[in-house]
Amino acid sequence: MKHNFYAGPAILPREVLDQASKAAHLVESEGLSVLEMSHRGSFISNVMDTAVQTAKDLLQVPDDYEVLFLTGGASSQFYMVPMNILGDNQTAAYIDTGVWSTKAIKEAKLFGHVDTVASSSDQNFNYLPTLGDIETKKYRYLHVTSNNTIYGTQYHTDLDLDVRQVIDMSSDIFSRTMDVSKYDIIYAGAQKNMGPAGTTLVIIKKSIVDQLDRPIPTMLNYATHIKKNSSFNTPPVFPIYVSMLTMQWVQKQGGVTAMQKINEDKAALLYDEIDRNPLFSGNVATDARSLMNVTFQISDQSLVESFLQKCDQHDIVGLKGHRSVGGFRASIYNAMPKSSIQVLVDVMQDFEKSHG
Amino acid sequence: MKHNFYAGPAILPREVLDQASKAAHLVESEGLSVLEMSHRGSFISNVMDTAVQTAKDLLQVPDDYEVLFLTGGASSQFYMVPMNILGDNQTAAYIDTGVWSTKAIKEAKLFGHVDTVASSSDQNFNYLPTLGDIETKKYRYLHVTSNNTIYGTQYHTDLDLDVRQVIDMSSDIFSRTMDVSKYDIIYAGAQKNMGPAGTTLVIIKKSIVDQLDRPIPTMLNYATHIKKNSSFNTPPVFPIYVSMLTMQWVQKQGGVTAMQKINEDKAALLYDEIDRNPLFSGNVATDARSLMNVTFQISDQSLVESFLQKCDQHDIVGLKGHRSVGGFRASIYNAMPKSSIQVLVDVMQDFEKSHG
Repeated sequence: MKHNFYAGPAILPREVLDQASKAAHLVESEGLSVLEMSHRGSFISNVMDTAVQTAKDLLQVPDDYEVLFLTGGASSQFYMVPMNILGDNQTAAYIDTGVWSTKAIKEAKLFGHVDTVASSSDQNFNYLPTLGDIETKKYRYLHVTSNNTIYGTQYHTDLDLDVRQVIDMSSDIFSRTMDVSKYDIIYAGAQKNMGPAGTTLVIIKKSIVDQLDRPIPTMLNYATHIKKNSSFNTPPVFPIYVSMLTMQWVQKQGGVTAMQKINEDKAALLYDEIDRNPLFSGNVATDARSLMNVTFQISDQSLVESFLQKCDQHDIVGLKGHRSVGGFRASIYNAMPKSSIQVLVDVMQDFEKSHG
Repeated sequence: MKHNFYAGPAILPREVLDQASKAAHLVESEGLSVLEMSHRGSFISNVMDTAVQTAKDLLQVPDDYEVLFLTGGASSQFYMVPMNILGDNQTAAYIDTGVWSTKAIKEAKLFGHVDTVASSSDQNFNYLPTLGDIETKKYRYLHVTSNNTIYGTQYHTDLDLDVRQVIDMSSDIFSRTMDVSKYDIIYAGAQKNMGPAGTTLVIIKKSIVDQLDRPIPTMLNYATHIKKNSSFNTPPVFPIYVSMLTMQWVQKQGGVTAMQKINEDKAALLYDEIDRNPLFSGNVATDARSLMNVTFQISDQSLVESFLQKCDQHDIVGLKGHRSVGGFRASIYNAMPKSSIQVLVDVMQDFEKSHG
């Protein structure tokens, strides 16, 4: 197996992959593959219920919230959120921390007014913008991206403004403790910290739906999926099944509290080497450094390719930085073992010896 | 393994399940599971391209069409079609052959006018309604459901009206020959004849997109997915991968021409027994009988449960009819082997001996 540092779809725990593979072949008790089972049958109904309950348990989701497994990725939540909760004459506040926030802002403008209340665009999003005094009463909600996969920035604590808060946690869901009650909607595409591509987690306060008189297609109305437990139509069964296995794996690690400690420890190993090694430097402001996506540069740009080749020789894949940032990005999600990060650190130290 | 007669998610070819299971464990050449590979990497890029090309080859898709793999099921096409091509003041014609058409009609009404130009609702959709002279010039498009999974009706030939035609082929795509050029949009949820739940095939004439001035969210605009080869955002990689394997399996059977002959032969085996066996009777008009979903009743309603038990004893699962129809439904999609249908026929004959 390679050391999988891709940003997403991304590494999944080995035992999850083994179990998923086995179920794709045959679930003994059913005499069928999990890929060919009816979503109305007892096995998949139980998978759906267990996935919901495990998400609730991991994040201590309050009773007045619903957990949904939808499709279309976070990109579909960019428009579903405003379509469902932002009236034509209402205004939403968005914090712009780069590409993903920018895309969310674009879609929201189709449904109402948008104020970008903070942005770090002046420095290519390499820090988290300070939110000054904002007139919270003016806004229907505030939207924020918790972890920006591309630049490697992350909010490490919950936002706590006196306004409905909506958060995109696509790349750090289940990686840290959080207070769900601070948000009206939390959403996350599966393919970083939750499972394979193909499903989207939405945790939503029930009281926020069905408040607009805008006509909404049935499939795009959160109320539909709340009422039908994410099975109004055939849900993406296998991506949800693997997400369930991954959430159960997080439980076995000790839940999100333990996961956060492990993630802090793993990230420290890599950031410490970046700070120590004279060849490398981190991209983002220290207090904004993501525990999930570690972005860094090499001092001599002509060495980029040769460092990537060296990584390749050590079975490290997916380390190339996003084209809008350059350099390197090590995505070290929940499933990334510390031993793989150690391999990367060793390669960095070897590289220092030969090129320092 | 059980004999899987479920309506959907449904049976997949055994060799496809084996290959999918293996790739979920490890793709040797990549050193990664297919579930954790980047959609921008060469392996998945090649899967996407191959899936598109195989669909094109199987259906001889003309060059002015695009093949897309989206999410959200056929239920999402119910609104995406009118959102993209039906102007506020335009009218679409819909043929109502039951539940799925009815749902499509409901969504279309959110975007423009709808005329239901034919319906078989007077007899619980047990036949295909005759389409009289319709004023085709009045309509932006005509929408039809090719195969109605619930009632067991199917159009066996292409519609050929002088109007843009849109067809929902969720339960019979790749089961028969067809002339793609007769339609402007063909769509199909994967989970009957194409793969596991989680992706939706859309074959679309390129000239039909981007003709309205309605603002459309980026993810809901067909133009977005045409421009980005279904990878504007992270596509549902694994469902598309398994769909690719299933389409390749259809190719190995000899393509859709051979598949149609096999399907006709398989369906005849079961319909002949239904017609011969005095205990059973078919639900729908003979000329409307589906090759995919065979619906039938037992003369003595008190025997329904005992027949289902008998089936269960012979490892036959998924035979219970939809609640709106009752009786039995044998879904015998492409992947259903004739030998499993023979097991069902044998059980029917045994049951006749003990209850006839």
